[in-house]
Amino acid sequence: MFRYSNAKSGRHFLQIPGPTNVPDRILRAIDRPTIDHRGPEFGVLGRACLDGMKKIFQTESHVVIYPASGTGAWEAALVNALSPGDTVLMYESGQFATLWKSMAVKLGFKPEFIAGDWRHAAVPEEIEARLKEDSGHAIKAVCVVHNETSTGCTARVAEVRRAIDRAGHPALLLVDTISSLGSIDYRHDEWGVDVTVGGSQKGLMLPPGLSFNAISAKALAAARNSRSLKSFWGWEEMIAANKTGYFPYTPATNLLYGLSEAIDMLVGEEGLPQVFARHQRHAEATRRAVRRWGEAGALEILCMDEREHSGALTAILLTQGHNADALRKVILENFDMSLGQGLGKVAGKVFRIGHLGDFNDLTLMGTLAGVEMGLAVAGIPHAKGGAQAAMDYLAECAAPPSLKAVA
Amino acid sequence: MFRYSNAKSGRHFLQIPGPTNVPDRILRAIDRPTIDHRGPEFGVLGRACLDGMKKIFQTESHVVIYPASGTGAWEAALVNALSPGDTVLMYESGQFATLWKSMAVKLGFKPEFIAGDWRHAAVPEEIEARLKEDSGHAIKAVCVVHNETSTGCTARVAEVRRAIDRAGHPALLLVDTISSLGSIDYRHDEWGVDVTVGGSQKGLMLPPGLSFNAISAKALAAARNSRSLKSFWGWEEMIAANKTGYFPYTPATNLLYGLSEAIDMLVGEEGLPQVFARHQRHAEATRRAVRRWGEAGALEILCMDEREHSGALTAILLTQGHNADALRKVILENFDMSLGQGLGKVAGKVFRIGHLGDFNDLTLMGTLAGVEMGLAVAGIPHAKGGAQAAMDYLAECAAPPSLKAVA
Repeated sequence: MFRYSNAKSGRHFLQIPGPTNVPDRILRAIDRPTIDHRGPEFGVLGRACLDGMKKIFQTESHVVIYPASGTGAWEAALVNALSPGDTVLMYESGQFATLWKSMAVKLGFKPEFIAGDWRHAAVPEEIEARLKEDSGHAIKAVCVVHNETSTGCTARVAEVRRAIDRAGHPALLLVDTISSLGSIDYRHDEWGVDVTVGGSQKGLMLPPGLSFNAISAKALAAARNSRSLKSFWGWEEMIAANKTGYFPYTPATNLLYGLSEAIDMLVGEEGLPQVFARHQRHAEATRRAVRRWGEAGALEILCMDEREHSGALTAILLTQGHNADALRKVILENFDMSLGQGLGKVAGKVFRIGHLGDFNDLTLMGTLAGVEMGLAVAGIPHAKGGAQAAMDYLAECAAPPSLKAVA
Repeated sequence: MFRYSNAKSGRHFLQIPGPTNVPDRILRAIDRPTIDHRGPEFGVLGRACLDGMKKIFQTESHVVIYPASGTGAWEAALVNALSPGDTVLMYESGQFATLWKSMAVKLGFKPEFIAGDWRHAAVPEEIEARLKEDSGHAIKAVCVVHNETSTGCTARVAEVRRAIDRAGHPALLLVDTISSLGSIDYRHDEWGVDVTVGGSQKGLMLPPGLSFNAISAKALAAARNSRSLKSFWGWEEMIAANKTGYFPYTPATNLLYGLSEAIDMLVGEEGLPQVFARHQRHAEATRRAVRRWGEAGALEILCMDEREHSGALTAILLTQGHNADALRKVILENFDMSLGQGLGKVAGKVFRIGHLGDFNDLTLMGTLAGVEMGLAVAGIPHAKGGAQAAMDYLAECAAPPSLKAVA
């Protein structure tokens, strides 16, 4: 039997870019008896989750919830919106864009993959140029990763929408928000997205196991003409059952308890604008630390375009041949912190600091101190004072002193 | 109904010097159905707790466990070991010594209180001098606080023992270890202590509600002659029932589940020497931060004797008239961290950083960053670089790089 072991003192720092730390409130919400998913109580829970997720996707349209992890919601988006043999335009922003492309191949679609350098998000101008060439409208969908978890580059989705419109192209716009939803501002309706893919284990602060599609009217119409074989992922039966808060097959009841609590926390209590601002503040503090370390060192922020800096994670490139996995090992062994590994093309060269989800200033400071001490222990050249730079910024951001009110 | 509220994101930093953060493992252990405290299963639990507590007190003698908070175990020590009218010699090390003295007055004992300056622990030489004057042996007990939670000064209990012996005085030695037990090395038998008082909510990482007496043979003999009225606190019935792991009245069953888990963690897994070394490391890192802030600032470590620096908490004195409670308010409001307030004579002048219990390097760094940022936001003069000084020390302490093993 697997037994969770923690002989070390204090709390493990889980600072991978998701799954993120699950708040105690959500763990307690999940820790309730499973109820009858056809019984009278369940519909209230189901509707609360479905209505709440519309607020989080910033949509008035449909949201469906799958008892499946994020990869499943990728598949759902493709098999509902498209038919076998359809051409889809995808952009190589990093590892997750690459994996989504490989999935499209397996499912019988024809992805065209615009090459990227893994240091930028999808470039709207390149998408526009390709769509303008496609006068016959062979391309049925444009697929973009909003926040590329492998690189820390965030695509400007509203600009991608405008690029498609400028090209006068009817392609659907499909967007992966798995590592941005609930962390970085995202507007399904306003930005004219047709299908948005989300997952539970990042900004929503839940364990993995739930995923989402937000679906525009245009995507729903396209789905009616889809010839892809599907059953589990089918939107139509899901949306029909959802009207009363129920599901066509067994939902992940206890994760929905947690989702309802997460929606209360994000939408009802902290408020989405505050949630987004908090993530941006922690991201900026992190980048100030990294820039300081890099002043005399062998590391730099992977993302090269300031407009694309992620609010959810920061990926750091080690230069001069230093091994990022060795550094992560030093940090895990000495300071009990998990950081994200470099994936795919940047394996061994990049490590990633997740600063998303249930997180605050002092936990960020513990995280950055762990990285700075890890650089020292691992002997990787860096300028000291990164954590100090982050502290200076966070103190600046703090509310004006309430000292006067007390004295 | 009280509802625990946490609209803020991330985990609250509870860095008062106890109650300390309760590890998830202990919370889960407590979160089990209450069993029959007279039933066949209970004795195993009771013996595990009683035997484990002997290891933690470093004694072969008796330990009793009360379903009561630490203040109760103070009372138990006095009413078992002494009779009404007995003179006890106490030392004013700070607020908790003062409270124990007030309790002794209420219970009909006659405390003599050696005045202290709240910046030192009990001075063995002063105790020796007073005992030497007491040729008639009117003094029946010497009461000392091991770790004075209000000042961060730790008494040298072994030296107090030697002072009593040098005076050739038969007084019992009673020691309060409420905020040191399980955090700072403490040896009931080796140091010749007669009654040691402990509580659950500090180094033992439990919620408040359990407390302890460790009892020497000499104290037990004295108890047989005690004329103090007592029932709940009586050692004799307790020790008789404990033989089989049961209690003479209802014990706090679920806290005992937690205690058994805490003993497993401290004794069975991490090991007491490692636990003590960890606390000393975090205390030293904290002092390096405070000293750095104080280089150009309005603050200093309260404890004036390096031999008495506490491994469990650091109390910091604000000089130049700055208000410590105002600073704590700024830190709580801006950085969601609770620090200990100044108590009694040092109210408003002192704040206290708890660095005990379930704690690690990165949580300490979050804590120290919160203090340093709080000083900045509150406009209290200080030299920057305290957190940096702590990081430098912790990185030095870390294991040599495992980098070579990987590369």
